[in-house]
Amino acid sequence: MYKVGVVGLGVMGANLARNIASRGFAVAGYDLDAAKTQAFAAGHSTDSTGGQGPPDQSKIGSADAPDRLMAMLERPRRVLMMVPAGAPVDSVIAHLRPHLEREDILIDGGNSFFRDTDRRADDLAAAGFRFVGMGVSGGEEGALLGPSMMPGGPREAWDALAPVLRAMAARAEDGEPCVAYMGPRGAGHYVKMIHNGIEYGDMQLIAEVYDVLSRAAGMPAREIAGVFAAWNEGELKSYLIEITARVLERVDEETGRPLVDLILDEAQQKGTGKWMSQNSFDVGAPIPTVNAAVEARLLSSLKSERVAASGVLTGPSAQVWGGLSRGDRQKVIESARQALYASKITSYAQGMALLRLASEEYKYNIDLSEVAKIWRAGCIIRAALLSDIRDAFSRAPGLTNLMLDERFARSLAPGQQALREVVQTAVAAGIPVPALSSSLAYYDAYRSARLPANLTQGQRDFFGAHTYRRIDRDGVFHTDWTHA
Amino acid sequence: MYKVGVVGLGVMGANLARNIASRGFAVAGYDLDAAKTQAFAAGHSTDSTGGQGPPDQSKIGSADAPDRLMAMLERPRRVLMMVPAGAPVDSVIAHLRPHLEREDILIDGGNSFFRDTDRRADDLAAAGFRFVGMGVSGGEEGALLGPSMMPGGPREAWDALAPVLRAMAARAEDGEPCVAYMGPRGAGHYVKMIHNGIEYGDMQLIAEVYDVLSRAAGMPAREIAGVFAAWNEGELKSYLIEITARVLERVDEETGRPLVDLILDEAQQKGTGKWMSQNSFDVGAPIPTVNAAVEARLLSSLKSERVAASGVLTGPSAQVWGGLSRGDRQKVIESARQALYASKITSYAQGMALLRLASEEYKYNIDLSEVAKIWRAGCIIRAALLSDIRDAFSRAPGLTNLMLDERFARSLAPGQQALREVVQTAVAAGIPVPALSSSLAYYDAYRSARLPANLTQGQRDFFGAHTYRRIDRDGVFHTDWTHA
Repeated sequence: MYKVGVVGLGVMGANLARNIASRGFAVAGYDLDAAKTQAFAAGHSTDSTGGQGPPDQSKIGSADAPDRLMAMLERPRRVLMMVPAGAPVDSVIAHLRPHLEREDILIDGGNSFFRDTDRRADDLAAAGFRFVGMGVSGGEEGALLGPSMMPGGPREAWDALAPVLRAMAARAEDGEPCVAYMGPRGAGHYVKMIHNGIEYGDMQLIAEVYDVLSRAAGMPAREIAGVFAAWNEGELKSYLIEITARVLERVDEETGRPLVDLILDEAQQKGTGKWMSQNSFDVGAPIPTVNAAVEARLLSSLKSERVAASGVLTGPSAQVWGGLSRGDRQKVIESARQALYASKITSYAQGMALLRLASEEYKYNIDLSEVAKIWRAGCIIRAALLSDIRDAFSRAPGLTNLMLDERFARSLAPGQQALREVVQTAVAAGIPVPALSSSLAYYDAYRSARLPANLTQGQRDFFGAHTYRRIDRDGVFHTDWTHA
Repeated sequence: MYKVGVVGLGVMGANLARNIASRGFAVAGYDLDAAKTQAFAAGHSTDSTGGQGPPDQSKIGSADAPDRLMAMLERPRRVLMMVPAGAPVDSVIAHLRPHLEREDILIDGGNSFFRDTDRRADDLAAAGFRFVGMGVSGGEEGALLGPSMMPGGPREAWDALAPVLRAMAARAEDGEPCVAYMGPRGAGHYVKMIHNGIEYGDMQLIAEVYDVLSRAAGMPAREIAGVFAAWNEGELKSYLIEITARVLERVDEETGRPLVDLILDEAQQKGTGKWMSQNSFDVGAPIPTVNAAVEARLLSSLKSERVAASGVLTGPSAQVWGGLSRGDRQKVIESARQALYASKITSYAQGMALLRLASEEYKYNIDLSEVAKIWRAGCIIRAALLSDIRDAFSRAPGLTNLMLDERFARSLAPGQQALREVVQTAVAAGIPVPALSSSLAYYDAYRSARLPANLTQGQRDFFGAHTYRRIDRDGVFHTDWTHA
């Protein structure tokens, strides 16, 4: 009998299955495409990570139909679906459902929208089955060697899956596996959506700092690569900083030029960043850094419009240089580093605050410390910073905002000043820094005991009789503005 | 027989009915709440605008049941529903439907979500009825004296309604009524959603400029009132600038202090700004200024968190003053004026670009010039600027982005420089200017032939094999980044 069944043997599904087998658990695979099932059974690697020998093939089986797959599995059956989000998930569930028995566990490891997972979880729970929506991050390589996994669903399902999931997960430096129970229904996919949005924010902040170093400070890609490589030794240490250095240092073989200089500047996206932006407005939690990142990708895709506009729209006056001194490159680099770190903290603070509010609204009961803990390795946003975030929410589980943690507040003090300098520099140089400036605006708004929303409320009462409150007494007030 | 029936006699419904009657059209009202119907029939004013005498009461009738209302109306019947968006609209439609005849026209004048209007329009069209989703802006006073109206639905319905709607609409300075056919199905409510989002953007930009003049330049409310009043004589001339001056000049009778200084700085919202933000991500059109405005309202509502954070989070280094010189108040004021005008143009450019793309996606076939034309009076965002926007889209109906219009591009040249100075000033002073800085970032990104999205694409190809394109040749490329 096999411990786990995997349905959907694309690169992610096949790699996760091999990962499971390599930990000593027997795994059986099935794909609607018989050729994929056969390749999987034959041990043909379909991943592009290379260098990894095939796992113990004796632990790997395959089936040519869903009912045969189900017949091969231990009870309760554990079936991991790795198919594209949306209609394919419902289709696979419909195919498997006639073969399910009570207490069987169906896991959706794709990037499903959390509301779809809520719906499927309720539907399957009503029939006595256990549905687990599990975010999986780490790409092809992580799937094979150890991803970060964010499972949500019935806790009994987690208990039944934990031995396998813990064994196959990435491990943080302290040896802890990067998987934990996130909460009921769509909690796991919700956390994955936040992960992906934060990833958008991280990438945009990095892109803007790169742009400032490149366009404002005039540094070539190779030099900036060295800067990022050095940053990866300090508090910015993270997977994205590491690969930024590696992308920037890459030389195009044919032209001998830095490859990054030849890549078209139109960023694509697959939608989970967008979901977080849209959801944040429903929950009512501001995430301007992530929103700026999603907007920046949209703007980047308007390449032909931008090229046309570059010849029409006026830039900053020549010779205006604000903020940092162009000549003092070391100071520019150090300010950029501090600015990146500070803005990253504000972005994580936004994301965690959204997570806290959403967890209340959707009754997910998510432990923010656990979330930070399992993001420390395996996933795209893995970073040294996440240990500190875990510690902050461990010390104070009810922490309203990460920036209010004493250690983070202290580490933001120099960073916020550097962030101001970098934003001023970019603004003067005509370089768009939407995510950096949105991060700073979030920081400054959050620490403003008084914001100009009093005027907004006055205007709303003027034109719509929407009423307002006062700072000097309780109650709800309306002014007849047109008759003094 | 009566020309128009009005269902829902709250302030907006009653005022619109009185408006219709005052133009010489007989109007009959009905409300589920018999007391409202009676008050309406008796000519008791329920509006708060005051000073307006009742219209010719002979033109006003009422009914105590939907079937009786329908029996009082000319055929095809024209019924304007003024009830809260959401379930109440469906409920009223269900009540009226049994009494409808083919070609009868049902108008939803509330703030319905355009997708709901699409659904209702399809549903009622299939039964042979004509459903019109109509955005109405102008508040209570506009409803009575002349609102801006944005009707969408079957063109035949528009033809049948036009005489009444034209008569009751606000009039621009050239005498043109502020109503026009927007397009099929939910087109009218879509345009109203854009109107409201732009309104959020305008209000936030004004609030930020007020904050800079107040907190950075140290000006009291009364002085800033004078500044806005003066601005209302120039290119910024608009309803919102006018009422800003009036809100700022208002003195609290009891304390003798400026009333605005006593209003609680927690901005409320009713949701249509949020809808535009969320929809922009679906359509794929970046609207960072409006998004920043919606985010700013959310941040403002975290008052107790902000008060706590103000004692914890560090502000800018003392005595750092970037951008403008604090001492030269006239220069600060003039820069603020130019910055507000420039950022407003970028915000309208974003909104119109979203409207253009959405019109294609939803097959609304909206004429942007007509939209700007009917926003010139009656509605909250009415402004001198809208005549120029109408002209720009009249000259070039296919204009990709408003900023590319020659006249707007030229007028942005000084404004973008002032915007840089104001943003730098605010950044140095620690004053959050999310909408101003987002507007500038949009401007700078849009005029950047090259953005750092090349790095983003390199990263995505690194961790997810998402591929990239090149600037020097066609095709789709993938690099094996881990093996040089």
